[in-house]
Amino acid sequence: MGVVTFLSDYGLDDDFVGVCHGVIARIAPEARVIDLTHGVPRHDVRTGALILARALPYAPAGVHLAVVDPEVGAERRAVAVRCADADRVLVGPDNGLLMPAAEAFGGAVEAFDVGRSPHRLEPLAATFHGRDIFAPVAAHLAAGAPLGGAGDPLPIDELTCLELPRPVLGGGRIEAHALAVDRFGNVQLDVSHEQVAGSGLQLGRAVSVNGAPAHYARTFADVPAGALLLYEDAYRTLALAVNRGSAQAELGLALDDAVVLEPA
Amino acid sequence: MGVVTFLSDYGLDDDFVGVCHGVIARIAPEARVIDLTHGVPRHDVRTGALILARALPYAPAGVHLAVVDPEVGAERRAVAVRCADADRVLVGPDNGLLMPAAEAFGGAVEAFDVGRSPHRLEPLAATFHGRDIFAPVAAHLAAGAPLGGAGDPLPIDELTCLELPRPVLGGGRIEAHALAVDRFGNVQLDVSHEQVAGSGLQLGRAVSVNGAPAHYARTFADVPAGALLLYEDAYRTLALAVNRGSAQAELGLALDDAVVLEPA
Amino acid sequence: MGVVTFLSDYGLDDDFVGVCHGVIARIAPEARVIDLTHGVPRHDVRTGALILARALPYAPAGVHLAVVDPEVGAERRAVAVRCADADRVLVGPDNGLLMPAAEAFGGAVEAFDVGRSPHRLEPLAATFHGRDIFAPVAAHLAAGAPLGGAGDPLPIDELTCLELPRPVLGGGRIEAHALAVDRFGNVQLDVSHEQVAGSGLQLGRAVSVNGAPAHYARTFADVPAGALLLYEDAYRTLALAVNRGSAQAELGLALDDAVVLEPA
Repeated sequence: MGVVTFLSDYGLDDDFVGVCHGVIARIAPEARVIDLTHGVPRHDVRTGALILARALPYAPAGVHLAVVDPEVGAERRAVAVRCADADRVLVGPDNGLLMPAAEAFGGAVEAFDVGRSPHRLEPLAATFHGRDIFAPVAAHLAAGAPLGGAGDPLPIDELTCLELPRPVLGGGRIEAHALAVDRFGNVQLDVSHEQVAGSGLQLGRAVSVNGAPAHYARTFADVPAGALLLYEDAYRTLALAVNRGSAQAELGLALDDAVVLEPA
Repeated sequence: MGVVTFLSDYGLDDDFVGVCHGVIARIAPEARVIDLTHGVPRHDVRTGALILARALPYAPAGVHLAVVDPEVGAERRAVAVRCADADRVLVGPDNGLLMPAAEAFGGAVEAFDVGRSPHRLEPLAATFHGRDIFAPVAAHLAAGAPLGGAGDPLPIDELTCLELPRPVLGGGRIEAHALAVDRFGNVQLDVSHEQVAGSGLQLGRAVSVNGAPAHYARTFADVPAGALLLYEDAYRTLALAVNRGSAQAELGLALDDAVVLEPA
Repeated sequence: MGVVTFLSDYGLDDDFVGVCHGVIARIAPEARVIDLTHGVPRHDVRTGALILARALPYAPAGVHLAVVDPEVGAERRAVAVRCADADRVLVGPDNGLLMPAAEAFGGAVEAFDVGRSPHRLEPLAATFHGRDIFAPVAAHLAAGAPLGGAGDPLPIDELTCLELPRPVLGGGRIEAHALAVDRFGNVQLDVSHEQVAGSGLQLGRAVSVNGAPAHYARTFADVPAGALLLYEDAYRTLALAVNRGSAQAELGLALDDAVVLEPA
């Protein structure tokens, strides 16, 4: 029987998440539901998309329900997307939230508009599609319903993608970008472990970050308090931090700003 | 095997909810537990009761455990209540918390005082009946124990009810009441979708709310920032909001205050 | 199939807990995971240890995963510990977190260093051993893998213990200590129900607490607002409170401070 993972920005103070669990349990009593997090910052589609893409490879294959949906009730589509990697189906709003995760599983290979899905609950509330569309569609799929019956076929290239910057590699430097900032002011960059390999940056050595001196270290403990460090986070992505401080404030970075990394 | 839904005001910072899950799992290892929410404002029986009544219809039938219990350790009874709708049993303190939910399932048809239930854990702590009475009673029922064995029979009319206002319909107007206020200042009224039908109020038209001009709209996006709107929330109940503001502050409303709605 | 309980200081705002659930579900799809709490104050090993020890007796036997790990990535060991009471295995960092729980189950009888466990995920992140070591080890054990295969044997007496004070009983008084303080200023003492029995302290009578007058009462409601009370909490441990106030502030107590209790 299927697995449903569930990520949202609903928080846990209200009954939104619990009601969606109820809806899933009525339709798919045997499905196992795994909450990834419901603490995505409210309406922050991009942060939700990045968390989803990095968390899902650690979760079992199944139906991956995700709801960060600032335009609920407006024109945005509701979709179910099958990935190239077997048995991974994403369900949620078509606002870019699902696409980095789809890429992580080989890209989208099939998509359906589920806004008028036969699985949806009636009457449909204008403001709670998590309950009335996304959870029931995910549950029916987890219970074994065919993806093709969940909605109307949609060409893959009509799916909405996020505009994400791409790092520029080569010439002994990396032009990275500020992809996300966490609550401690740590800045996630758009450079993976594999991309660092040929760059000339060496773990344990000094590095220049937009001209500022920093250390390319393994952990915070490797630099003194107040020092800037470049490190690989737990998802093998480069990030910037100030030990007991805020890298974002120190460097004055906004989302998507360029961050040039060079051996010092 | 049974389902146990669980709502409380315990929050998730402490181990209260986790310990109740442990108790249930020891007694009913096969039961599926669905957390509706544990974020009910502390000791707010009325808000807990309203959330329970609106959330449970979306959950599978089973045993519905609810604990918002400001008088724990004092004289209030502990009860298990069977509803007219098959297979819905409510377990919790007899302080009104369970009754709107019972009404939503056709009313209470059988009740038992479970304060001295053979299922309860000994020694009984004076301050944690969730762990020592309510969770074990709910778990034994979910595992198939008969309701009659959970405690002493209690006449239905001795169950404690909440004092809730009732809307007055007719004469081209609705006298509603402020039933609850959420953290954004949105005000839930005691008028259902069905009750609006014959009232003369029309979606998309102007409406007078205690004499103030408002729009009867589908969503916040239908009115400008700062404007007052009347709308149907996701549970098909009328509510008041100010787009990017607080309807409660704008109208100076306290709980149970009358709210007169008329076509403008 | 096995049960995994899970306690941590990860909080629920991020995806840490959800990712660990994913890891467990991939390895042990049939295991039931019970979250005890993820609200342990960040890096507070001692509070986590006390909560774990008092909560676990209410949970089913199984694998007990606990992660409060301020020294992740440094030298501290990662361990799996079998308790004398059948079928209780603790998995977590070797920083004292697990030992009060081990004592509650008859003491540790077998231990393994799982830092290089064959079950761990590769590549190992320096900062997320919950995901890469502890969750997969717990999951494999819950799925039936032998404890001896989880790592290298470790002498029991090399396990790290917390330094906890011990109460001094006798002579008509108890020298207790402040073991923990909750967010309301209630102070948990290191005296159990059984230890009170021969002390001369009598429920319902006046008592002296470091010379200050107090009542040994059953609940807060038994004393007026502002009054100091000694009471047995829901885990049958003595505690101090001020009704609608802070016992910690009233008495000026720090962790481990002596608290002398005498009949007044």
